[in-house]
Amino acid sequence: MIDPRDFGIDNLPLGIVADDAGRARPAVAYRDLVVDLDALVHARAIDEQSLADASSLNAFLGRGPAAWTALRARLQHLLGERASAEERRAVAAASHPHGALHARMPVQVGDYVDFYSSLEHATSLGRILRPGGEPLPPNYRHIPIGYHGRSGTVVISETPIRRPAGQTKAGDAAAPEFGPSQMLDVELEMGWIAGPGNALGAPIPADAVREHVYGYVLLNDWSARDIQGWEYQPLGPFLSKSFATSISPWIVSLEALEPFRVAEPPREPEPLRYLRASQPFAYDVELDLLLLTRAMAERGDPPFHVSRTNLRGMYWTVAQQLAHVTANGATIRPGDLFGTGTISGFEPGTQGSLIERTWRGRDPLALPGGETRAFLENGDTAIVRGRAVRGDLRIGFGEVVGTIVA
Amino acid sequence: MIDPRDFGIDNLPLGIVADDAGRARPAVAYRDLVVDLDALVHARAIDEQSLADASSLNAFLGRGPAAWTALRARLQHLLGERASAEERRAVAAASHPHGALHARMPVQVGDYVDFYSSLEHATSLGRILRPGGEPLPPNYRHIPIGYHGRSGTVVISETPIRRPAGQTKAGDAAAPEFGPSQMLDVELEMGWIAGPGNALGAPIPADAVREHVYGYVLLNDWSARDIQGWEYQPLGPFLSKSFATSISPWIVSLEALEPFRVAEPPREPEPLRYLRASQPFAYDVELDLLLLTRAMAERGDPPFHVSRTNLRGMYWTVAQQLAHVTANGATIRPGDLFGTGTISGFEPGTQGSLIERTWRGRDPLALPGGETRAFLENGDTAIVRGRAVRGDLRIGFGEVVGTIVA
Repeated sequence: MIDPRDFGIDNLPLGIVADDAGRARPAVAYRDLVVDLDALVHARAIDEQSLADASSLNAFLGRGPAAWTALRARLQHLLGERASAEERRAVAAASHPHGALHARMPVQVGDYVDFYSSLEHATSLGRILRPGGEPLPPNYRHIPIGYHGRSGTVVISETPIRRPAGQTKAGDAAAPEFGPSQMLDVELEMGWIAGPGNALGAPIPADAVREHVYGYVLLNDWSARDIQGWEYQPLGPFLSKSFATSISPWIVSLEALEPFRVAEPPREPEPLRYLRASQPFAYDVELDLLLLTRAMAERGDPPFHVSRTNLRGMYWTVAQQLAHVTANGATIRPGDLFGTGTISGFEPGTQGSLIERTWRGRDPLALPGGETRAFLENGDTAIVRGRAVRGDLRIGFGEVVGTIVA
Repeated sequence: MIDPRDFGIDNLPLGIVADDAGRARPAVAYRDLVVDLDALVHARAIDEQSLADASSLNAFLGRGPAAWTALRARLQHLLGERASAEERRAVAAASHPHGALHARMPVQVGDYVDFYSSLEHATSLGRILRPGGEPLPPNYRHIPIGYHGRSGTVVISETPIRRPAGQTKAGDAAAPEFGPSQMLDVELEMGWIAGPGNALGAPIPADAVREHVYGYVLLNDWSARDIQGWEYQPLGPFLSKSFATSISPWIVSLEALEPFRVAEPPREPEPLRYLRASQPFAYDVELDLLLLTRAMAERGDPPFHVSRTNLRGMYWTVAQQLAHVTANGATIRPGDLFGTGTISGFEPGTQGSLIERTWRGRDPLALPGGETRAFLENGDTAIVRGRAVRGDLRIGFGEVVGTIVA
């Protein structure tokens, strides 16, 4: 569902769309329209050749911040009141209603890293999974903990999510079993997407965010909690996550989000020097998690509001994640995707996963029509929406949606 | 160093090479020659169009087993005694000494997974890291444990390996420090490379190995043990591994290795049904780990023989790894790389890592010239070599080499 207020002249997020014949091209979302950037290049209305005949934004992301800023300024001119009659004709010829084109993956993801940067999420998960123990691991306040996910199964919003099968073992069972996951969960996250990248062995400093990060999408890192619990020792989550990760179609640039850059939460102890940036890099983005069951959809009910949370409270920011992931000399490449980790608060109704929201099923959601949910059932649709709002200024992300199929 | 005996008519491994001008093309290693497959396609000596003007083998790997077998048969004809005079001329025109061309990455790696499939390695590491505890995690004999590594830092043999910096914390220190790793290690592994792949949600059965796996390379998964020890809880190894993973240039096909397919080691309990193949998929491949320090190289010493081991003893095979990684519906793609995990035995001199071989530095290696080593120092070169041999038949992998730089 498109909310045209999300995509005003101050936003101009980029994506890839395809027509019914399957031809993909880069585009910008503007109000209730999708404007074909390939068409604008061929009409000589814009001069960013990396967008010509492109089926992903990787080449454009590799061009770096000067090109990003120039394109944004040019599009604001073309879509604004000072465009010439000829420019307006070019834009009109390149514009389509959202429904006429299909969103595709905006980038070809090279590597996908998922962080674990909400202290509240990590604490709650520790309490649920290791009751009585210390909830946070000892490294938590020192390291932006993360791990590599499967880049080949990052999918675009609206891709159906097949319930994964896998090995699970009940605590009291003698042996594991293989079958469909019974604890299928969401993880409400955002993801940042890398720009030009670095050479092998050349770390990126925390202050270089604007040179190396193009922008953010919404991200749902689907998780099979029963598979995760049995597999994750000692090398971390694997098949419990690798079946699918969904992202929203439109990448919102850091430049558009600049008015929403806010102070970071306090940290104690102070992080090591390589994790310190000279400016704050928290962003004030409101996020909602919603759930629509098949029965609710058949009745025409609106989605149930599960949680509301905000990116701004994350313990580790994009600057620290960027510095950390390259501190050992590892490269990042244009189009690489970095999940923030599940974004949660402690208060009821602020958690970004069902395992936290229902305390592993102890407190199921009571849905309209008498249904309850601890975890996702077949036919359920999970929706994440996000936007940054201050007064009249609204920078929206749209939504990332997925429906569970058997 | 090339041993021409590795690359006889029964082997014919494929790779990518570049000339001094940087132009990359696919090639086959044959005795002391590299034969340019792009040139053979353009000379119409072979008819596999996926090799024309290709800078990776991904498209060819995607073509599947019928194309793989046809190319192998055609090359055996062209390089054999029944080739026509015209065919011999085409081959001669396409042939170069190994030293005239530079090995490049044979594939563009989409996702890199590293397994943990040597029971001996997992047991020894458990004993070293958790003395007094149960060395194997409870899931070990049920699950081919693995995790995702960083595909963007898989590099070709001979790429210099920069010593990574990172966070480490001594057991008795109050806080972590940031600096160069002091426990830089090797992991002797092999890696298998995927063929055509599957659709999202369509698991690959264990018996479909030959349809989905093209072949093997040697792999060294460089590891910073001090960074690993501090970072790996709860989500697994991350920056301790992501700075570099080296592979050998020539992919040896499963077809060439077929004579070396042998019985699998016993397993108790019997794995779940999805992990059972109807044939054995262990391979009898001898592997050597060697070390050459800068002082040894300056004296002209030969490398020191650290360990000898064999792929055949691995607890989990390629068939089980393939079935497991897709059991949840995850896709694999042509060129995806899957490390076996460190290949170790229990006997001294059979371990595939220094942390095992020196028992975390308790028993340092005594090298020629009076040097000792617990872990790698700057200027050290680690070499992994491998070959399958029975009587006159020898299928060699060549070697994977890397030198540590500051």
